[in-house]
Amino acid sequence: MEQITALDVRDIRFPTSSQADGSDAMHPDPDYSAAYVVVHTDGTHGHEGHGFAFTIGRGNEVQTAAIQALAPLVVGRPVAETLSNLGGLGKDLVHDSQLRWLGPEKGVIHMAVAAVVNALWDLRAKLAGKPVWLLLSESTPEEIVDLVDFRYISDALTPEEALAILRKAAPTRSERATRLQVDGYPAYTSTPGWLGYDDAKLRRLCREAVEEGFDQIKLKIGRDLDEDRRRLAIARTECGLDMRIAVDANQRFDVGEAIAWIRALAPHDLWWVEEPTSPDDVLGYAAIARAVSPVPLASGEHVHNRVMFKQLLQLGAISYLQLDATRVAGVNENVAVLLLAAKYGVPVCPHAGGVGLCELVQHLAMFDYVAVSGSVEHRAVEYIDHLHEHFVDPVVVQRGRYRTPRAPGFGATIRPESLEQFAYPDGAAWRERAAGDQWK
Amino acid sequence: MEQITALDVRDIRFPTSSQADGSDAMHPDPDYSAAYVVVHTDGTHGHEGHGFAFTIGRGNEVQTAAIQALAPLVVGRPVAETLSNLGGLGKDLVHDSQLRWLGPEKGVIHMAVAAVVNALWDLRAKLAGKPVWLLLSESTPEEIVDLVDFRYISDALTPEEALAILRKAAPTRSERATRLQVDGYPAYTSTPGWLGYDDAKLRRLCREAVEEGFDQIKLKIGRDLDEDRRRLAIARTECGLDMRIAVDANQRFDVGEAIAWIRALAPHDLWWVEEPTSPDDVLGYAAIARAVSPVPLASGEHVHNRVMFKQLLQLGAISYLQLDATRVAGVNENVAVLLLAAKYGVPVCPHAGGVGLCELVQHLAMFDYVAVSGSVEHRAVEYIDHLHEHFVDPVVVQRGRYRTPRAPGFGATIRPESLEQFAYPDGAAWRERAAGDQWK
Repeated sequence: MEQITALDVRDIRFPTSSQADGSDAMHPDPDYSAAYVVVHTDGTHGHEGHGFAFTIGRGNEVQTAAIQALAPLVVGRPVAETLSNLGGLGKDLVHDSQLRWLGPEKGVIHMAVAAVVNALWDLRAKLAGKPVWLLLSESTPEEIVDLVDFRYISDALTPEEALAILRKAAPTRSERATRLQVDGYPAYTSTPGWLGYDDAKLRRLCREAVEEGFDQIKLKIGRDLDEDRRRLAIARTECGLDMRIAVDANQRFDVGEAIAWIRALAPHDLWWVEEPTSPDDVLGYAAIARAVSPVPLASGEHVHNRVMFKQLLQLGAISYLQLDATRVAGVNENVAVLLLAAKYGVPVCPHAGGVGLCELVQHLAMFDYVAVSGSVEHRAVEYIDHLHEHFVDPVVVQRGRYRTPRAPGFGATIRPESLEQFAYPDGAAWRERAAGDQWK
Repeated sequence: MEQITALDVRDIRFPTSSQADGSDAMHPDPDYSAAYVVVHTDGTHGHEGHGFAFTIGRGNEVQTAAIQALAPLVVGRPVAETLSNLGGLGKDLVHDSQLRWLGPEKGVIHMAVAAVVNALWDLRAKLAGKPVWLLLSESTPEEIVDLVDFRYISDALTPEEALAILRKAAPTRSERATRLQVDGYPAYTSTPGWLGYDDAKLRRLCREAVEEGFDQIKLKIGRDLDEDRRRLAIARTECGLDMRIAVDANQRFDVGEAIAWIRALAPHDLWWVEEPTSPDDVLGYAAIARAVSPVPLASGEHVHNRVMFKQLLQLGAISYLQLDATRVAGVNENVAVLLLAAKYGVPVCPHAGGVGLCELVQHLAMFDYVAVSGSVEHRAVEYIDHLHEHFVDPVVVQRGRYRTPRAPGFGATIRPESLEQFAYPDGAAWRERAAGDQWK
């Protein structure tokens, strides 16, 4: 019987800080990184499962240690049985009676579960010969509900309610799957908006966004109010009145400060304000949302599990839910989050960018459209044109839309030569940088 | 100028699971562990700073990796300047622009900050020749406020309000410090109540609790309702009507289930119900508290930062706040939590037990009494009679009260021979266990 034989875990880092790519009010100098895992089996099919947790540099070695800590819970499992019950596998990892102390269900240990669960989804989809979005979209409502851990969310969403949402969408799934493959899924671009870019670069990238057919962009804010006003004015001038312009404060403010800052920027017609304060402060979000209404709030990339999403939805505190592919415990928990969002009627606009997050999260958005919410209205997946060249199956975004991925798997596989070059600290990219630093 | 020269980080584990010590509804088999750190300097005074994060076994190596990740932010700092501004040091560690992605302010990376910050408090107190509770209690209100990171809590507590709380208590500090050294600080015992103990052991340990002078015990609940009723009846019979009997569900329930379970146990006169559901679910706590009123709820050992405590207090969801010495970012953040609790008038009954948590947290409770809340009413520090023999300055609990520690420092120092014996996986205790397992 085929078994899982090993988790091969690697510390992969890209020196993005040198270009100010990804710079925002709280993270001025990220080095986009992947705590990368390959699930090996003793099968003869030649397939492996690839997954990762995304971090921004320092500490990626802690993330790889956390993935390694899950190996004893996964290695030795029978492949067929494990892949046919990924909901059960996910619960075993999340609720391990000793490891849960490190969270519970948050931070490094939870992102480690994401990496492993996602790698197993990649393997399952490769063996099925289908991309994950399609594999999920072809599952029965009962199979999908089985993926969900209802612990701590049953007061907001019962298995019966989840089934009803999925059954309602089921009869029309194939129409939407067809349309998706023709039209693609809406994307928005955050490429222009990093705080570390000067006005000329902002201007140029805004023009490019228009030319490339995007109808939504996002700018980072929160360092200086006058700077924000100036940059929003530039973007509006370059992009025109029809462009949706969202802004992202990356947790910069306290509650009172957020209210004042957002009110000051409100005349700039903000599509949403993202992460105005601590992602943990669900009451703070609710207070801000009430005070700045009708300006909509968005959050999710640092919302650490379904329990936190549940509360944001119960409070009506967010108008857009930005799930992330590797922050919560992988595909399974994101299915729970999609169902919660559908229950509360809040559109999901996934967080992406970083390294490989676009590649992964497009599958979840497409599944949402086909089998859960059934809508693309007010929905778009973030897109940032960074680091896709390192992936075996990079995303394809054309005229502001993600094309449906066709390759089997989850799209998480980084090219072998990139894994080698950006291995930390011994890959060529880092050895060169260290050598360069010596001459400064 | 004296500098910090190294963080020496060790993985220390005690095989407590073999005795069912610490067994509860979610953690049936903990191996109490310390991700232990020693801060070395190049000073000639011979002092080191000792600290740790507490975990329950598997994953302690992830916790040690996280502490190690902080070393570059600490090593090389000047000792005097660092120790005179531990508030600033704590903020530097918490808000590191890359490491924060691993939390932010939660889980493994946040507990790593706790270990390092607490180790520096230990060093500072040793150099001052005072126990931490006294050092803190002798600080000026302004110095204490400088320790607090008001980010994300200014909507609930301003620096001015914090100063007012501290100034109000200042004139009568010395009376309370004197009384404390005579009377000690109230303790309650959780020793009798582990789920893995049989009825005879429960009965015996309840009798011992009475004999030892405790006026509060705590029992684990949540595995089986009839079992809980039977164990509560045994405890009441053995301990009498005057004993305060608290119960602890260790996150076992969903919201609806918690309400039904607590109502079923309410006739047993529960002093509090601890962790009925996910520690993240502040709205769930509020819903449960409303539904089971007047049964009081308690939480804190898994409440991951001041932002979460703030919300529990804003909602009036908890009647007892159970801060933990190593879950949030060490002494500094716990000072913030004590001030928040004082502002909202909620008594603090710290979580302890594990390994070394009693040794640390008694200092915070005593500081609270002398300089913050000024009261011991409805307050007690958890006490469990486990593993104290491994500490250089073990807690002293007599007639149900913690005696004030007199040794300089934070009490975190584990004896060198214990560090050696319980080093994982190469210490004698683990080598013996592995050898024993071979013969099974």
